[in-house]
Amino acid sequence: KNTEAQAGAEARNGQLTKPPGALGRLEDLAIWYASWRGTDRPEMKAPQVIIFAGNHGVCAQGVSAFPPEVTVQMVANFEHGGAAINQLSKAFGAKMDVHALDLDTPTADFTQAPAMTEEEVVAALQTGWNAVDPNADVLVTGEMGIGNTTSAAAVAAAVFGGEAGDWTGRGTGVDDAGLSRKTDVVARGLALHADAIKDPLQALRCLGGRELAAMAGAIAAARSCSIPVILDGFICSAAAASLHAAQDGALDHVVAGHLSAEGAHANILSNLGKDPLLSLGLRLGEGSGAALALGVLKGAIACHSGMATFAEAGVADG
Amino acid sequence: KNTEAQAGAEARNGQLTKPPGALGRLEDLAIWYASWRGTDRPEMKAPQVIIFAGNHGVCAQGVSAFPPEVTVQMVANFEHGGAAINQLSKAFGAKMDVHALDLDTPTADFTQAPAMTEEEVVAALQTGWNAVDPNADVLVTGEMGIGNTTSAAAVAAAVFGGEAGDWTGRGTGVDDAGLSRKTDVVARGLALHADAIKDPLQALRCLGGRELAAMAGAIAAARSCSIPVILDGFICSAAAASLHAAQDGALDHVVAGHLSAEGAHANILSNLGKDPLLSLGLRLGEGSGAALALGVLKGAIACHSGMATFAEAGVADG
Repeated sequence: KNTEAQAGAEARNGQLTKPPGALGRLEDLAIWYASWRGTDRPEMKAPQVIIFAGNHGVCAQGVSAFPPEVTVQMVANFEHGGAAINQLSKAFGAKMDVHALDLDTPTADFTQAPAMTEEEVVAALQTGWNAVDPNADVLVTGEMGIGNTTSAAAVAAAVFGGEAGDWTGRGTGVDDAGLSRKTDVVARGLALHADAIKDPLQALRCLGGRELAAMAGAIAAARSCSIPVILDGFICSAAAASLHAAQDGALDHVVAGHLSAEGAHANILSNLGKDPLLSLGLRLGEGSGAALALGVLKGAIACHSGMATFAEAGVADG
Repeated sequence: KNTEAQAGAEARNGQLTKPPGALGRLEDLAIWYASWRGTDRPEMKAPQVIIFAGNHGVCAQGVSAFPPEVTVQMVANFEHGGAAINQLSKAFGAKMDVHALDLDTPTADFTQAPAMTEEEVVAALQTGWNAVDPNADVLVTGEMGIGNTTSAAAVAAAVFGGEAGDWTGRGTGVDDAGLSRKTDVVARGLALHADAIKDPLQALRCLGGRELAAMAGAIAAARSCSIPVILDGFICSAAAASLHAAQDGALDHVVAGHLSAEGAHANILSNLGKDPLLSLGLRLGEGSGAALALGVLKGAIACHSGMATFAEAGVADG
């Protein structure tokens, strides 16, 4: 974060041909973006969307409305351009990359054992770290992984506390019996790993999944390159929460793209102190809500960097 | 509205590679758009943004934080590409047109006389009607007119009832004394024209402005061409409200682009039964909030018309 660029952007914002504050959150968003890009008049020309996919041993407990083979089928759909995130990436000019993480080797069922070994979680974090293009100027991380709302609920509960039921929702659409099973599964995972998961990165290892760890790695890498990040929904936010819990301020380069329909997402965002840009009832994952928010960020930056000042336009400033 | 296209779009939506409902409001938006464009798989390639500008006799009452000459100065800014709406139109691929309506002849001060004669309001409605490009596939109407939140508040109060204070806000930023003056001005206008304004189009004539009438004309013309419309903020919504009050269903081809920070906008939208797509604290006018919502609509249509079906992608549908 560049405080000089931030001050320059704030000064510029005050001179643009509009009443003070009339662009609302677009003004804050443009100034925040300028501060991370190190210039008072930034552009956004190279958005990157990265989708990480992983499989989850906990699916054996019957926590999802979809069978686990859908993960690899959807990866093929991403690669062939057929998913929602393909359309949204194209609509907002983003490069899209897909990383499937050992889909043939699901994580361990976290009600029986830690989801990942130390080696596995480190490998997933590294995959995420290395997936970030240092020349990108904004990053969206998305995911695909049947069973991963269960994993995300467990990670959020570990990081923020509370009961399993506070964090567990319907995901892709389980019925009441499924929700009850899922909540019980989360509670059993929290109990089994109670000691280890006091450390948020151990929570990611014991309860998370490869795609969650990869998103965390990518978000951390973006920070090291001063690339602003837009959070997607519940699973992405749970992965980010592990960074937030591990180090205060770790998400200063991050905005919340949208509020998901997955019930506990609001609770995660509130704990992260992030106000979502959009609230349109999405609950798809894949980075879809964040990619949609690229449009808002694009508009904010276009106004900030493209508008005339009062002096340039010869407009009286009230 | 084409019910066959709507049914086709609903059927298509149910086959796309996502859990049912997982794209939230994007799904409804795409189906609504398809129904107006008459095809189950629509595209959005020709957005039109039209800015109408007018001056207001009621400015003599000290209702704005800005002097009236800012209207013509901002029209020059639109024409030279320096305003927020220029950047947003460009960012979302919209053609932008500007119509300045008799800026040298402000409307009459509505606390003294009807703002417009019959001839004047008809001319403004026609300007709006004729400004719509029949080949556009979505329309944003925006406005510029120092004093026009006062006019819009009066029109909204006339159309929906209630007290002047329920509809009057700070506009571009008047202080407490200005707000009190403005509320009194609205109340006096409502009292003076109490009989005539029982008819919503007479409310537009007696209390509105040329740019409000032009927006109403453009929104009506769009309906006749099956062009969906995105409403902007308080002033645009007040203009649209006169159509809604004049004829039930007159705004079926319209969505609310955003919720403005102008306090009474929420009240107008609630009376219109429209749920805004965005809520980012904008209060600029110029069509800015609606233009930003073009991004949401673009994303919705891209997903609906571009995604693969379960069958096409070979994905199990749960």
